Amino acid sequence: MNESTGYEALTVETLPARLGKVAEITARVGADSSAWQVKEVGDGNLNLVFIVSGAAGTLIIKQALPYVRLVGDSWPLPLYRAFYEYHALTRQATRAPGSVPSIVFFNEAQALIAMEFLEPHVILRRKLIFGERVEGLAKFLGVFCAQTAFRGSELSMQSAEKKADVALFAGNVEIPAITEALVFTDPYFDAERNNHTPGLDGVIAKLRSDVALKVKAQQMLQRFASNTETMVHGDLHSGSIMSTATESRVIDPEFVQYGPLGFDIGMLCANFLMAYFSQPVHRADDLDDYQSWILGVIDETCETFVSEFRRLWSDERTGMLYPATLFEDQGHDSSAACDAVLVGIWSDAWAICGIEMHRRCLSLAHNADFEDIEDVTLRAPLEARNLMMGAELIHRASEFKSAVDVCELARTYNSKDFL
Amino acid sequence: MNESTGYEALTVETLPARLGKVAEITARVGADSSAWQVKEVGDGNLNLVFIVSGAAGTLIIKQALPYVRLVGDSWPLPLYRAFYEYHALTRQATRAPGSVPSIVFFNEAQALIAMEFLEPHVILRRKLIFGERVEGLAKFLGVFCAQTAFRGSELSMQSAEKKADVALFAGNVEIPAITEALVFTDPYFDAERNNHTPGLDGVIAKLRSDVALKVKAQQMLQRFASNTETMVHGDLHSGSIMSTATESRVIDPEFVQYGPLGFDIGMLCANFLMAYFSQPVHRADDLDDYQSWILGVIDETCETFVSEFRRLWSDERTGMLYPATLFEDQGHDSSAACDAVLVGIWSDAWAICGIEMHRRCLSLAHNADFEDIEDVTLRAPLEARNLMMGAELIHRASEFKSAVDVCELARTYNSKDFL
Repeated sequence: MNESTGYEALTVETLPARLGKVAEITARVGADSSAWQVKEVGDGNLNLVFIVSGAAGTLIIKQALPYVRLVGDSWPLPLYRAFYEYHALTRQATRAPGSVPSIVFFNEAQALIAMEFLEPHVILRRKLIFGERVEGLAKFLGVFCAQTAFRGSELSMQSAEKKADVALFAGNVEIPAITEALVFTDPYFDAERNNHTPGLDGVIAKLRSDVALKVKAQQMLQRFASNTETMVHGDLHSGSIMSTATESRVIDPEFVQYGPLGFDIGMLCANFLMAYFSQPVHRADDLDDYQSWILGVIDETCETFVSEFRRLWSDERTGMLYPATLFEDQGHDSSAACDAVLVGIWSDAWAICGIEMHRRCLSLAHNADFEDIEDVTLRAPLEARNLMMGAELIHRASEFKSAVDVCELARTYNSKDFL
Repeated sequence: MNESTGYEALTVETLPARLGKVAEITARVGADSSAWQVKEVGDGNLNLVFIVSGAAGTLIIKQALPYVRLVGDSWPLPLYRAFYEYHALTRQATRAPGSVPSIVFFNEAQALIAMEFLEPHVILRRKLIFGERVEGLAKFLGVFCAQTAFRGSELSMQSAEKKADVALFAGNVEIPAITEALVFTDPYFDAERNNHTPGLDGVIAKLRSDVALKVKAQQMLQRFASNTETMVHGDLHSGSIMSTATESRVIDPEFVQYGPLGFDIGMLCANFLMAYFSQPVHRADDLDDYQSWILGVIDETCETFVSEFRRLWSDERTGMLYPATLFEDQGHDSSAACDAVLVGIWSDAWAICGIEMHRRCLSLAHNADFEDIEDVTLRAPLEARNLMMGAELIHRASEFKSAVDVCELARTYNSKDFL
C-alpha cells in the first residue's frame, strides 16, 4: 500500500472485502460479497482486470498498476491514467452512444473503474486470428470513429468547453509519451527496447536508412503531439475491441488524448491490414475468402466514416469551425470545405496507418496476429510485406483517393516476396 | 470596485495612493508617491496604461479593463488576460532575452503589471507611417520569432513542461476567441461588427464569393485553434513593437496562446506589407526608397528567421521531436527534416499573412497605416491592392520559395488598379 495515497493493488482474495460495501457494485453483483466469484484475467500490460460474479450479476473491475507489467517495476507509470480512462469513457459514451461499456463506479485514489461485463464478447484480435466474422463490425467502427472525431472537435464543441477538455487531458503526460516513443521513434532506429523477428534485418536496414521516411514519421509525431483537433481513443487496435458474432464495443481508452482527427481510424486500419497479412499462416481453405472479408471491413469502415462524417457535418456543425454563417447562410455550399477536411484526415490516417504497421513489428509491443506464428521462417516474410507496405503508405499518404486504393495495394503486397 | 475580487480600475488620481506602498514599485519610481507624476496613455482597446514618474525613475503600469474599450462595456472580457500576459512576458524574456520589457511587479487580482518604461521608444507603426527607419529591426524581429517559436516547441522543450504550459494557456479562452472571430471568420462575410472603406464593395464581393478562399481561411482557423506547436505572441503587428532609431522591443502579448510555429511571423509580415501598400499617400519624394526599405525588412526578417531557426535546430534540439538519436547518431544528416519543418512554417505563415491583410481592412480593428488616410478615394485603391494580394497569398501559400518571391509579388500589386 502507498502510505500517502492509500492506493493498494487488489487481489483475488482482498477484492470482495474491499469492494463489498460499495453500493453501486453490490447492487450489480450482489450484497453478499463473501459469495462473490473473482477471477483475474488481465492480459494487458498496464492493469489488473477482475471478473467479479455474484448472485445479482457480473462486473469488470479494472485497476491501474503503477508500472508497465510487461517490463516489471522498472518502468513506473502514474496511476492517474485511470482518471483519464474514466473521463474518456464518459465522453465516448456521450459522443458515440452504445459504443463503450457502461461505467458503474470510479475510485480515483484506487485507480479503479467498475464497469459492465461484456459477454459473450471476446477480443476482436482473437476472432481475426481464428478466422471468425463479425456482422456489422465495419459500420460500428466507422460510426464510432466518425462520431468521436467530429463531436470531440470544434466542428461540434463550443470552444470554451473544448479548451477546458484539452487542458484536462494535457495532464496525461506519461501515457502519450509511450506512444510518442514506441510508435513514432523507436521503430526507426535500434532502440534498446526493440525486438524483431529473425530474418528481417535486410528489410529493416532499408527502412532505417530511408531518411525521408524518418522525416515523415517525425512530422506525424509533431502532429500527434501538437494537434489537439479532437479527443482520440489513442490505442484503437483489434485488441481494444470486443465482439460477439453480431455486436461490438470499444474498450481501454487509457491512451486518450486530444490529437489529429485521423489518428484512430488510421491505427485501426493498420491493425486490420496486419490481420490480413498474417492470414496465410492462420488459414487454409478459406484463406482468400477471409482475407477478402478483412479488406471489405477496412473498405466499409472507411466508407462509413466518410458518410457519417458528412452526415454530422450537415446536421451537427455547431462549433466555430466552418460555420454556417460563412457558407450556407451566404448561399454557399460547404461541401468543398468538408472535402478539404476529409482530405486532411485521410492524409494523416494513412501515414499513421503505415507507422502503426511498422511499430508492431519493430518496437516493443508486437501483436498476436504475427507473434502467434511460432515458426519465424513463416512469420518473417509476412511481416516483411507488412513493413514494406507501411513504408509506401507513409510516403504516399496524401495520394490515396479512398480505402479502395489502399486495399488494392494490400493485395499486391500480399503476393510479394521481400526476403 | 468588484466586491468579490477587490478589482478596481486605477485612475490618474487614485494610482499613487494605491501603489505607493508596493516596494517593487517605489524602489523604481520613488518612495514619496505624493510626488509621482501620472499620465494615462492607453490607446489600445483593452487596457489602461499609465506612465508613472517620480524621483527615482519611471515605470509603466498596465491594467486590464473588464471590457473592450473600443465598444464599451457591451463586450465584457475577463481580467485574467493580465495573468496570461504576465506569463507570456516571462517566457519571452527567457526564450528571446532582451526582446520584451522587464517586469517589475504583478498583481493578479488587480490585473495589473508594472514594467520597464521604454524611452525614447515609440510604436513602430507610427514610425512606418512617418517614414522613419529602424536600424537592426529585421534582425531583431527574425531572431525574436525564431527563438520564441523554436524554444516554445517540443523541438526544444521537454514534453511534460510543454504539456503543462499548453494546459495553463488553454485557460485563456475569450482572448483567442477575438482572434478566431475577427481575424479568420468575420472578414469573409458581412458580420455585424465589420466596416470597410467606401469604394471597395466590388473587390470585397469578389473575395466573399470565393468559396475556396473561405475554405482555406477556415483551415487556417482549424490550425490556429488546434495546433499547439509553440507559444505564440498572438498579436505581433507593428503596433506591438516599440522602437528607437536603433533598438526595438516587443510588447503586449495578451493574445498569447499555443499555436502554429508560423503564426507570429506571418502576421508580422502582413503588417509590413500593409505599411508598404499605404506608403503612396504618406510619402512624396522618397516613396520608392522607403517602400524598398520596408520590403527589405520583410526579406531580411524572414531570412534571419530561417538562419536562426537552423542554428537552434543544430544547437538546441533537446525535445522529443526529430531527435539526434534518430538522425545524427545514425550518421544521417537532419537538414532534410529541418527543411520539411520550415516548409510547413512558411506555408502557414503566408496563409496567415494573407488573412491578416484582409481582416485589417474588412473586420472590426483596422490599422492606422490605412485609417490615417482621411481621403477615402485615395485609401480605397491602396486597400484594394492589399486585399487582392492577400487573396493570392492565401491561395498560393505553399508555393513561395522565400520571402523574396512574396516581396516581388508585392511590387507587382503595388502598381495595379482594381477599382
